[in-house]
Amino acid sequence: MYVILVYDLEADRTNKMHKECGQYLDWKQNSLFEGELTKSQYKELSNWIDKYVNTEEKVVIYKFRSENAMNKDIYGFERDSSNII
Amino acid sequence: MYVILVYDLEADRTNKMHKECGQYLDWKQNSLFEGELTKSQYKELSNWIDKYVNTEEKVVIYKFRSENAMNKDIYGFERDSSNII
Repeated sequence: MYVILVYDLEADRTNKMHKECGQYLDWKQNSLFEGELTKSQYKELSNWIDKYVNTEEKVVIYKFRSENAMNKDIYGFERDSSNII
Repeated sequence: MYVILVYDLEADRTNKMHKECGQYLDWKQNSLFEGELTKSQYKELSNWIDKYVNTEEKVVIYKFRSENAMNKDIYGFERDSSNII
């Protein structure tokens, strides 16, 4: 499956989160990761997140059958005119 | 179309961005919005973003045919066991 992961954590706890997510997914921007995961990789990562994240924090993981399910537009830093409709 | 919008802006410029996105989309967590947009709403919002965002910043907008294209798991604050597979 293809996933988009966005986290909102306390500032001093983001480094560990970033490191863990980076083992499974590609970093896209501050607190945003994307990538293809097997079911077992998803389970590993989500189990880790479930234990790590506290009730003052939040992580959303969007799951798709494939990357083809979406189109993506990027503005600012990595702007690429080919991405913009 | 259904969109997920994630922004990474300089701290003192997020309020204005938050306010603008909130006119079109639902706020989900820090720097994350979601919602259904018509093509013309998308054009309005993306034109505004294109002008507002500078080269040190970044905004990613993921676009889908409908909200049904995705599943969503939430961890932490708004955890809801019905959302977690």
